[in-house]
Amino acid sequence: MHQFRNDYSEGAAPEMLDALIRTNGEQAPGYGVDPYCEHAADLIREACAQPDAFVQFIPGGTAANAVCISAFTEDFEGPILAADAHPTAHETGAIEACGRRILATRDALGILTPAEVERMHRDSIAGGCHCTRPAMLYFSNTSEFGHVYTRAEFDALCDVAERLDLAVYVDGARMASALAAPGGDLTLEHVTERADAFTLGGTKAGMLFGEALVVNPRSKRGRRAIERIPYLVKRGGHMTAKGRLMGVQYGAAFTRAADGSLPYLSHAARANECACLLARGLEDAGFEPYVHTNGNQQFFWFEPDDAARITEACGAEVTPALDPAGRGRVLLRFVTSWTCRPEHVEELMGFIAAL
Amino acid sequence: MHQFRNDYSEGAAPEMLDALIRTNGEQAPGYGVDPYCEHAADLIREACAQPDAFVQFIPGGTAANAVCISAFTEDFEGPILAADAHPTAHETGAIEACGRRILATRDALGILTPAEVERMHRDSIAGGCHCTRPAMLYFSNTSEFGHVYTRAEFDALCDVAERLDLAVYVDGARMASALAAPGGDLTLEHVTERADAFTLGGTKAGMLFGEALVVNPRSKRGRRAIERIPYLVKRGGHMTAKGRLMGVQYGAAFTRAADGSLPYLSHAARANECACLLARGLEDAGFEPYVHTNGNQQFFWFEPDDAARITEACGAEVTPALDPAGRGRVLLRFVTSWTCRPEHVEELMGFIAAL
Amino acid sequence: MHQFRNDYSEGAAPEMLDALIRTNGEQAPGYGVDPYCEHAADLIREACAQPDAFVQFIPGGTAANAVCISAFTEDFEGPILAADAHPTAHETGAIEACGRRILATRDALGILTPAEVERMHRDSIAGGCHCTRPAMLYFSNTSEFGHVYTRAEFDALCDVAERLDLAVYVDGARMASALAAPGGDLTLEHVTERADAFTLGGTKAGMLFGEALVVNPRSKRGRRAIERIPYLVKRGGHMTAKGRLMGVQYGAAFTRAADGSLPYLSHAARANECACLLARGLEDAGFEPYVHTNGNQQFFWFEPDDAARITEACGAEVTPALDPAGRGRVLLRFVTSWTCRPEHVEELMGFIAAL
Amino acid sequence: MHQFRNDYSEGAAPEMLDALIRTNGEQAPGYGVDPYCEHAADLIREACAQPDAFVQFIPGGTAANAVCISAFTEDFEGPILAADAHPTAHETGAIEACGRRILATRDALGILTPAEVERMHRDSIAGGCHCTRPAMLYFSNTSEFGHVYTRAEFDALCDVAERLDLAVYVDGARMASALAAPGGDLTLEHVTERADAFTLGGTKAGMLFGEALVVNPRSKRGRRAIERIPYLVKRGGHMTAKGRLMGVQYGAAFTRAADGSLPYLSHAARANECACLLARGLEDAGFEPYVHTNGNQQFFWFEPDDAARITEACGAEVTPALDPAGRGRVLLRFVTSWTCRPEHVEELMGFIAAL
Repeated sequence: MHQFRNDYSEGAAPEMLDALIRTNGEQAPGYGVDPYCEHAADLIREACAQPDAFVQFIPGGTAANAVCISAFTEDFEGPILAADAHPTAHETGAIEACGRRILATRDALGILTPAEVERMHRDSIAGGCHCTRPAMLYFSNTSEFGHVYTRAEFDALCDVAERLDLAVYVDGARMASALAAPGGDLTLEHVTERADAFTLGGTKAGMLFGEALVVNPRSKRGRRAIERIPYLVKRGGHMTAKGRLMGVQYGAAFTRAADGSLPYLSHAARANECACLLARGLEDAGFEPYVHTNGNQQFFWFEPDDAARITEACGAEVTPALDPAGRGRVLLRFVTSWTCRPEHVEELMGFIAAL
Repeated sequence: MHQFRNDYSEGAAPEMLDALIRTNGEQAPGYGVDPYCEHAADLIREACAQPDAFVQFIPGGTAANAVCISAFTEDFEGPILAADAHPTAHETGAIEACGRRILATRDALGILTPAEVERMHRDSIAGGCHCTRPAMLYFSNTSEFGHVYTRAEFDALCDVAERLDLAVYVDGARMASALAAPGGDLTLEHVTERADAFTLGGTKAGMLFGEALVVNPRSKRGRRAIERIPYLVKRGGHMTAKGRLMGVQYGAAFTRAADGSLPYLSHAARANECACLLARGLEDAGFEPYVHTNGNQQFFWFEPDDAARITEACGAEVTPALDPAGRGRVLLRFVTSWTCRPEHVEELMGFIAAL
Repeated sequence: MHQFRNDYSEGAAPEMLDALIRTNGEQAPGYGVDPYCEHAADLIREACAQPDAFVQFIPGGTAANAVCISAFTEDFEGPILAADAHPTAHETGAIEACGRRILATRDALGILTPAEVERMHRDSIAGGCHCTRPAMLYFSNTSEFGHVYTRAEFDALCDVAERLDLAVYVDGARMASALAAPGGDLTLEHVTERADAFTLGGTKAGMLFGEALVVNPRSKRGRRAIERIPYLVKRGGHMTAKGRLMGVQYGAAFTRAADGSLPYLSHAARANECACLLARGLEDAGFEPYVHTNGNQQFFWFEPDDAARITEACGAEVTPALDPAGRGRVLLRFVTSWTCRPEHVEELMGFIAAL
Repeated sequence: MHQFRNDYSEGAAPEMLDALIRTNGEQAPGYGVDPYCEHAADLIREACAQPDAFVQFIPGGTAANAVCISAFTEDFEGPILAADAHPTAHETGAIEACGRRILATRDALGILTPAEVERMHRDSIAGGCHCTRPAMLYFSNTSEFGHVYTRAEFDALCDVAERLDLAVYVDGARMASALAAPGGDLTLEHVTERADAFTLGGTKAGMLFGEALVVNPRSKRGRRAIERIPYLVKRGGHMTAKGRLMGVQYGAAFTRAADGSLPYLSHAARANECACLLARGLEDAGFEPYVHTNGNQQFFWFEPDDAARITEACGAEVTPALDPAGRGRVLLRFVTSWTCRPEHVEELMGFIAAL
């Protein structure tokens, strides 16, 4: 059966693979200082409608978070984020390995809210040099539990950040899915306009590997980060020798197709459609979601026995969470990628119906 | 007016000061490898009834926490502790500066509970190498909000730690107060018997400075920590050149007086008595405590105006906390030290009554 | 003109590229826990003649060094290495970012010698906890300046390490070149037999990216490192989501061709031949090498004007070094890869002859 | 026999001890925010003739180095220093524990020279983001081997630092000795005028503990460091709860005596006189010094047997160094403190004469 384990189960989507094959024999300078990376950065700046944005390609998402958070903070500063965010949940202390302390809020469902940002900021600042100084907000879009931030939510976070002089960093490991989510009202241009930094994840959007870290040079913080990033990338061991591989793939992903669409987004749109189809199917069948979302990750509650069988069949992963109904149900995560097709969803729904 | 700001407002208690003066001119080897430190360590081992305990003197409490937590963990491991503990609240990321990630539970009031330890452990272990591996429990006694752990609470934490193969480290910056708390049933011998490591804080117990870190060599973890600690102390910049100063003071604090009492505990007992007197007075006057405690830190809720005046008068500090009654009250911390006398408390109560 | 800038200018060698294309559409679990990685590890173990070796794929060389050095050391320990080694020269403090102090010897030409290892060890140990404790040797083969260690040199280092209880780690970013160097007498089996850990570099041997870190489980140190490595890889941000890409490529590189040869070594042999051809040509033309080597990196001294023109033409990089002749000559590095052919060397020699 | 082991063998000099006793019972705010620290800082600013200097008291020398070097650098920057300086020789990786890489020159005798500074800077900058970026010079005065920098040497280092845009930090753990060295021409005012930061060591100048870190706010770097230092002090675990102890002692050390002298310097002058007396005696007796110096540390070569007896008698420590005469002699360090008197030196010389 088609696997719904995650969105990095396959290799590269056709455009990216073709570009890699086509350029394979060419000689180019190493470490990302090559024409492919330059061209890809230009295409990204164009898609973002920000001609002076700084673009750095980084091979993985945890690496991108560690670099960006380090770049925007001093040694004794940290990011405010929701307790269930990726850096607290699944990075084995990668941010702390950079000597940074995370300021985790008590937000429910891993969705960062202005109220908790304000409380955390107030309590930290009150302690002066006895507390880690807040320097930035971190949230991922889509979030760890699949939430797609609305424009209003995003703006509210940017507003509070502006008021408190905090940078805004959006971890976009699944930004393609967020931007392509049916009904979503947040655009790439708007994210670029308001965030200080964000990533356009490639690994989960049909590339072999790669995250594009985009930084806005308009603020003093942003300019400092831009100066720091190349050094931090190298120091962190994230400077890809054959850096042009990311340039080649991003170049393909951000070159408009004949119909004007960006492959980066159209692959995500297909994945989202399948995920929404699955979510509707599960809800119709009486299963309860963790949050309602149109992104490519869907979390649903199952009885333990069913969960085990579903996991075995389609790779859906168990996610640690407490059943709010107190019934001991298990939370399963289903993820779709650009390879998923409606018939895969139907097959899975058939399997679940037959349990 | 006498200040209730904290328990490190004054210099040294008489026994400690006298000992420092008496030995001032003697020449001794540096860095804590001297007869005074050796003798003091012997006295501490005797008081703990553990002849083979390892004792390391460290100048401050944050340093002791950073050293001990580093000593008991691997780079990718961390301590489980309550979200409001000292390392999360008031150490500016000192643990993270050692590259360690803290695993903070959702326990209320900063009091660590076995249930939350188990949940945190289960979720972390489930993630394998994608999550920080839990290696130890950390809690302070008295706690950040003044709680004195009972023997039953302490044993329950030791039990869960044993079951999950976690080390137990008790931050004893205020251990003297905890052990001398009226009605307390936890003894130094019992702490030594069950914990893998703990500190006997000196700074808040009448010394100029110093924490004695005591480590139990019975476990493999403990033996590894013992080998690591001297290096970590030096690497952290915590190796006091005139290390014998701590030996001299601890020697005085743990030399029994004519009546058989330990100065280390009798000073704390006096401080606790005054704190309890204050707590009773405030409760009688209708003020509400944050937690009920017999230690030397008392936290009470006040209307903002009153709080400002009390702070100005006696140095009581505002502590960030949300009024559970939703009335916007402010939480004040009152701390007594070995210099506090009942008449100081009466003076303060008179002031508060006249507000 | 063909570029001699480095050995990571191109994409993947044919076997690796074909394997990537062939497996592109398959779904596999992420993070290197997949059948491709498992199979590749088996092939590597076979080539090393060590059935129980631990194999971890890591995307880059600096990352592999940081992980392996961290894995084999405690926080307060460090590797002994020659002052001009890669971690001191070109990693922007990646090892120090892990909190480790490097113990750099005064060896000339970046070639580690037993005498300097012994001196550094003796002086460090004499300082007890006031000095970083030596825990391992690090050297790269080929070295930063292209030296190919002989079996005798390698054994002498292993002997001193054994006597001093130090682990031996060989950075093999260019191990393929070292093992395939004409006249070289060091074999993969012998390296495996005596070193505690080494890498088999892929990036500079015809893969898109990847280093295979091989660890010997026979020693206590090795077993501790093996337990630590997966966590350190994740914590360092080096856990490749589509980890199977490295498995696929290493699988191809270590699958014997029809003639029984390993693509991993035969590509390197071709690169070495071209480099030796170039070296002979340059020496015949009267240019002086930095060291004599049969590896794929050649360093020669040139007058500044010539150096500038050569760099412009073929990408040879200037390497900081003091002209021993005191004539202000510039040191150029020429590197060949699996794409280099004799006619490329001839073209370059023609260019130089015409200067 | 009087011990010549080091200058931190005793407690506090009379002025400091008296001040501690006199103020022992007073209540003052913690963490160095108290009137004593404020007053002492004023006196230091006056002695330095720099009214706006920033002064931070830090309990120990390794801590002061770690804080100051961190404060003046970015994560990926480091200090240039001589290979035998204290941070490389005797701090167990304390600077690397802050994630900073040290750029060690090849200077002989641990004396930093402009030529090596320039070479190290040039090579590092040439590597761009692939190398640690040099940000500051570090040297101690007196140096690790007792050298007292002349005004000309100091100015030459400040000149090269200015030209290369590097900060200058002088580790003054023995600054009192350096400033009071007979024949020395470097003044406190001049150090203050040209260095970006320096310490006025207290521990080795008759205090129980404490280093005063003085930072010049005139440069952008200095202002950034000043903002960072309080946080780094706390994060490093170096925030002394009873911070006023350092204020009290520095207040006494920098309060002019009836004859107009500063106790800080007059104690050092006495120590220097005894050390010079010893050096003259040893040279007259035919022993060879490592370097000629008028500071309070003297290093001389001895035959191994004599060295062992001298060490046993007076505590002189063996220092790792290679006998330039190739005769296998041992280098001994003799250190005098404010308690040393000429008759102590005569006794030691008598002992040595009788060997």
